[in-house]
Amino acid sequence: MTASGYAGARLPGRPRSAAADAAIIEAALRLIEEGATIGELSIERIAREAGVGKATVYRRWSGKEALMIDVMRSLEEPNPRPAGASVRDDLVTLLELMRRRGLAKRNSALLRTVVTQMHANQELWRAYDAHVIAARREMLYEVLRRGMARGEIRGDLDLELLADLFTGPMLSRVILHEWKALPEGLAETIVDTVLEGVRPRP
Amino acid sequence: MTASGYAGARLPGRPRSAAADAAIIEAALRLIEEGATIGELSIERIAREAGVGKATVYRRWSGKEALMIDVMRSLEEPNPRPAGASVRDDLVTLLELMRRRGLAKRNSALLRTVVTQMHANQELWRAYDAHVIAARREMLYEVLRRGMARGEIRGDLDLELLADLFTGPMLSRVILHEWKALPEGLAETIVDTVLEGVRPRP
Repeated sequence: MTASGYAGARLPGRPRSAAADAAIIEAALRLIEEGATIGELSIERIAREAGVGKATVYRRWSGKEALMIDVMRSLEEPNPRPAGASVRDDLVTLLELMRRRGLAKRNSALLRTVVTQMHANQELWRAYDAHVIAARREMLYEVLRRGMARGEIRGDLDLELLADLFTGPMLSRVILHEWKALPEGLAETIVDTVLEGVRPRP
Repeated sequence: MTASGYAGARLPGRPRSAAADAAIIEAALRLIEEGATIGELSIERIAREAGVGKATVYRRWSGKEALMIDVMRSLEEPNPRPAGASVRDDLVTLLELMRRRGLAKRNSALLRTVVTQMHANQELWRAYDAHVIAARREMLYEVLRRGMARGEIRGDLDLELLADLFTGPMLSRVILHEWKALPEGLAETIVDTVLEGVRPRP
């Protein structure tokens, strides 16, 4: 899966249309901030707000779904590239991003609104999952596979379960138990503790 | 915290009113099954459906909130009593219950409806959390504290984090990733793996 069709707002090297893209995303965010729901928003209204023609929007995005995914992305930190030096450090990088995303959602009413509304719209969420979350999941799986190949992680555990063991404790705080703290060092503690449990035994 | 005021439907030794209690809970479930939302339901309507007077309902429950908590409970397996023989087995008991509750929710449209509607009603959910979920959480904390006291679990980890390490992987499957399987043996695998990571090191 590639997310290229959805990454428009960040593609370098197209200065003129990049400015238009940014203006379009800004316009959508402004409308949402002013109280419009994603369901109500039309490409036409966003284009008008951005001061561009509908054709300019459609040149970059196939429709509202694709545009909204980039709107959400514009509010989030970009995915990191795990450096590959150690499985432990790569896992910390991925969990730390989850932690910071969780904090961002707690601190930004706008991000909160967009996430909640996208989540409520099944089709939109499925597209976001397929294009954004799936890429993160694949990154995690790669790190875990590398850990198994290198003998840093037991080889007898199901990959999906292994992923849940690392991400579950962070996810349950970020999404399910929003009253719980997300302190610095949380990613490190979770990774080090779980890693101790899943390393190969002599 | 005691849940006594909410446990009416299960209190033994009051045969005559116990039958009325069961009829009232059945009536509420029937109305929900027929499409009524919890928000719409009134004590009056439930009493009428059950063929009892409003006073009979109020004799047992302080109001709709308390009644709805027992309605939800009537659909769930009762809490287990961890036997206390080993921390490992107690943790398996608690996680296994989460797994079975997750399966029940996937298989029962009625339970699904009730959970979703209760969740959507902040006040109701808070009450359910305070009276039902909090009791389960406390049970888990007790098992973990016992594990630390007996030297089966490291003493330097925060209790809440420790709880998340065990329950997070199960919760993320049960609640967040409903497309993932909940196979038999999942509770055991999670407990054994995490326990290996949190046991004291020589």
